[in-house]
Amino acid sequence: MSEIEPSANIGVVGLAVMGSNLARNLASREGNTVAVYNRTTAKTDALLEAHPEAGFVHTATVQEFADSLQKPRTAIIMVKAGRPTDAVIDELCEVFEAGDVIVDGGNSLFTDTIRREKAVRETGINFVGCGISGGEEGALKGPSLMPGGSVEGYKTLGPILSTIAAVAEGEPCVTHVGTDGAGHFVKMVHNGIEYADMQLIGEAYDLIRQGTGASPAQIADIFGKWNDGELNSYLIEITAEVLRQTDAETGKALVDVIVDQAGAKGTGAWTVQTALDLGIPVSGIAEAVFARSLSSKPKQRAVTGDLPGPSASAVDDAEAFIEDVRLALFASKIVAYSQGFDLIVQGAEEYDWDIKKGDIAAIWRGGCIIRAQFLNRITDAYADEPDLVALLSAPYFREALTAAQDGWRRVVVAAAQSGIPAPAFSSSLAYYDGLRAERLPAALVQGQRDFFGAHTYKRTDKEGTFHTLWSGDRSEVTAEDTH
Amino acid sequence: MSEIEPSANIGVVGLAVMGSNLARNLASREGNTVAVYNRTTAKTDALLEAHPEAGFVHTATVQEFADSLQKPRTAIIMVKAGRPTDAVIDELCEVFEAGDVIVDGGNSLFTDTIRREKAVRETGINFVGCGISGGEEGALKGPSLMPGGSVEGYKTLGPILSTIAAVAEGEPCVTHVGTDGAGHFVKMVHNGIEYADMQLIGEAYDLIRQGTGASPAQIADIFGKWNDGELNSYLIEITAEVLRQTDAETGKALVDVIVDQAGAKGTGAWTVQTALDLGIPVSGIAEAVFARSLSSKPKQRAVTGDLPGPSASAVDDAEAFIEDVRLALFASKIVAYSQGFDLIVQGAEEYDWDIKKGDIAAIWRGGCIIRAQFLNRITDAYADEPDLVALLSAPYFREALTAAQDGWRRVVVAAAQSGIPAPAFSSSLAYYDGLRAERLPAALVQGQRDFFGAHTYKRTDKEGTFHTLWSGDRSEVTAEDTH
Repeated sequence: MSEIEPSANIGVVGLAVMGSNLARNLASREGNTVAVYNRTTAKTDALLEAHPEAGFVHTATVQEFADSLQKPRTAIIMVKAGRPTDAVIDELCEVFEAGDVIVDGGNSLFTDTIRREKAVRETGINFVGCGISGGEEGALKGPSLMPGGSVEGYKTLGPILSTIAAVAEGEPCVTHVGTDGAGHFVKMVHNGIEYADMQLIGEAYDLIRQGTGASPAQIADIFGKWNDGELNSYLIEITAEVLRQTDAETGKALVDVIVDQAGAKGTGAWTVQTALDLGIPVSGIAEAVFARSLSSKPKQRAVTGDLPGPSASAVDDAEAFIEDVRLALFASKIVAYSQGFDLIVQGAEEYDWDIKKGDIAAIWRGGCIIRAQFLNRITDAYADEPDLVALLSAPYFREALTAAQDGWRRVVVAAAQSGIPAPAFSSSLAYYDGLRAERLPAALVQGQRDFFGAHTYKRTDKEGTFHTLWSGDRSEVTAEDTH
Repeated sequence: MSEIEPSANIGVVGLAVMGSNLARNLASREGNTVAVYNRTTAKTDALLEAHPEAGFVHTATVQEFADSLQKPRTAIIMVKAGRPTDAVIDELCEVFEAGDVIVDGGNSLFTDTIRREKAVRETGINFVGCGISGGEEGALKGPSLMPGGSVEGYKTLGPILSTIAAVAEGEPCVTHVGTDGAGHFVKMVHNGIEYADMQLIGEAYDLIRQGTGASPAQIADIFGKWNDGELNSYLIEITAEVLRQTDAETGKALVDVIVDQAGAKGTGAWTVQTALDLGIPVSGIAEAVFARSLSSKPKQRAVTGDLPGPSASAVDDAEAFIEDVRLALFASKIVAYSQGFDLIVQGAEEYDWDIKKGDIAAIWRGGCIIRAQFLNRITDAYADEPDLVALLSAPYFREALTAAQDGWRRVVVAAAQSGIPAPAFSSSLAYYDGLRAERLPAALVQGQRDFFGAHTYKRTDKEGTFHTLWSGDRSEVTAEDTH
């Protein structure tokens, strides 16, 4: 028996920036006493020294950590995704007992979370994969929290998470997303939408800059104004901040000094890969991910930079163009969210999660990177119709798209005419027009597939599966579906 | 000891349509004697009965199959990808011996092939994953063959494959692609390009139909003409055939009777997923895959079909528009191949394969679905410059794009203006303009990432990695790259 008193109601393992900040956030809330543990004790020592006000319970071993926690024990792991996370889970499982709760707060792939939850559940311990969005500042001041795992685990964990989550319109940005990997799945989709949103903002900036010759500072003002309207969001707000920033060294706009190669940490790619597995078209998100990878190919760009383009066509009416860009941005953003929610719906079906779509939009309103006014409209839409088949078709969005579509088309036209790349704007419009189409050339594609691979087709006028004897007399035969 | 004479120089396991056809192809070539085996002997019996001319060696057990083969034994497995393939490999490994060659001719995922090759190699047996393209007819009359695996395995296998491969301009469409999974990797990319090519053709058809009001039969004539020019290819040829087909029952064009929902068997999705892993933008292929999945969402399409669009704008000059569509198709096709070859180059680097890009284009000239005149130009381009950084920048393609880009832009403009979905055309143009861009808004994206996640950025004017203290005094600090 250890002599340590079980004085803490929550523990944090892994004290890098995110973990430390989350621990400090927890400690700052009424009623919480936080035990902290790090593999290297020096980090634990440093945290306690830097933040005596937090009243952390210092623990030097995993056993001490477990002993310091009141039962049922609750611990949040904040270490790197992958093997380090597996290692810590194994260690905790040895010292925790049935009924305790282990939370993975890292950016784990949801299929890893499903696997881990299954393994940990066999010990009687609850395992919760919890998406945490908001970066370092969010962790410290109030993140958006997306916990999965069992309902039982959430009973202990939920009240604690509620104390540290961001608050939006009076409600904490946390909900029990669904069982096992649901939380990390939704966090992944959040990040995918974030990729799309950032790319769309980048295209809006680029079109205005190249189309009207406005300076970054002037465009900062435009984004500032947009932030007062239906585009109101954290990303629009910080875009204005970034564009307004002057580089001290050169006196230029900082954005002109930054190398135009965007990095990525993989969650955008995961989103698209998962969507491909589930058969959900997330083209806007995919274009955003690919735009980043294209930007990071300096060798290719060096040899393709002089490929022929149009003679730059200036925009006639700058003010009207800027308003069109605003409309294009709003419409394309609606498409990105619609695609993201389609993916959540399909994920829920595939993995048997009971995900309340409106609640997801609600917990994204605060703390996280894609927080936006607009999310209230998504919550409303799902409140009106919980089984909404397409977000685009909800009344508010239908109206917004009706108002936006002409301007949106003009922007895609201007981009193509003047040779300014707008992959996410144009992909989103093509997706929109695809959904609207009465007939798609998919019929021809299916005909081609039947021709070269006997893949068969359905007919519009009767049930069944058919095949044309293309190499024979070209008559039609009924076929088995499973060719 | 079995009493069976080792009379066959090649064997085929799995006698469904593809396997039977491949076995018949092998048997029809000078010098081959083919042993056949199927888990259900009835299938083997039926094949021998139907094709006495083939002189097949009938075997009823795996042991008999092994005994009937001359050493080093060579067997091609033609069963379903996944577990059935693993099962047959295990069985063959028990009766084969060091130096023998096991070939997987199915559509296996290349990472499975890498895993299998590694496992089989430990027994001393050679394992070759071989992509086979051309469908049932190709298997029978001459497919395009993409074998991977060891050089040693290819010594035995290569001469046999050469006898059955399609012949293009006097050369058999087969080459040793690279070690272990290289063959299946290249076959996967082939299929990804095929998805893009088919979608582009679909968009061309749809634009002409909706833009000019031409009938399917008239468009068949247009495709027929195109097939005489630089677009000459199997897919253009069969598109004309499909469009010319009249449904006997209704008297309508068959394409108007086929349900406009395109199916997919997964290799397109694999291509995009692999590209995401390797950081290669294959946006045209992705749009093609997503266009198929969008088409197959009848519930969504039912509620979004009445979303507002533009009032249909007719095309002024039909003939000029059709020529623009031809140019757009050619230019977008170049982009699709360029993206596909980028993926092959990156795959080769990642997995340490010595892939000759020109040879790949050469073996795709015959037998396979994407066979096209155009591939000669790719072979030429890589012959001129084996380490070509971007196919788009090779002289022939540069010229083609120069000639095409104005028409291409007009088509993307027309699509956006008239609300006809052209996701692959517009994505390809945006990709092209992205590669051409002197500066991309990726700089802004990187600035946003630094703002909310301290992800740092590089500067255009000096080495190093930097971070702006956005929440502090907004001065710039040097940062570690690995934040």
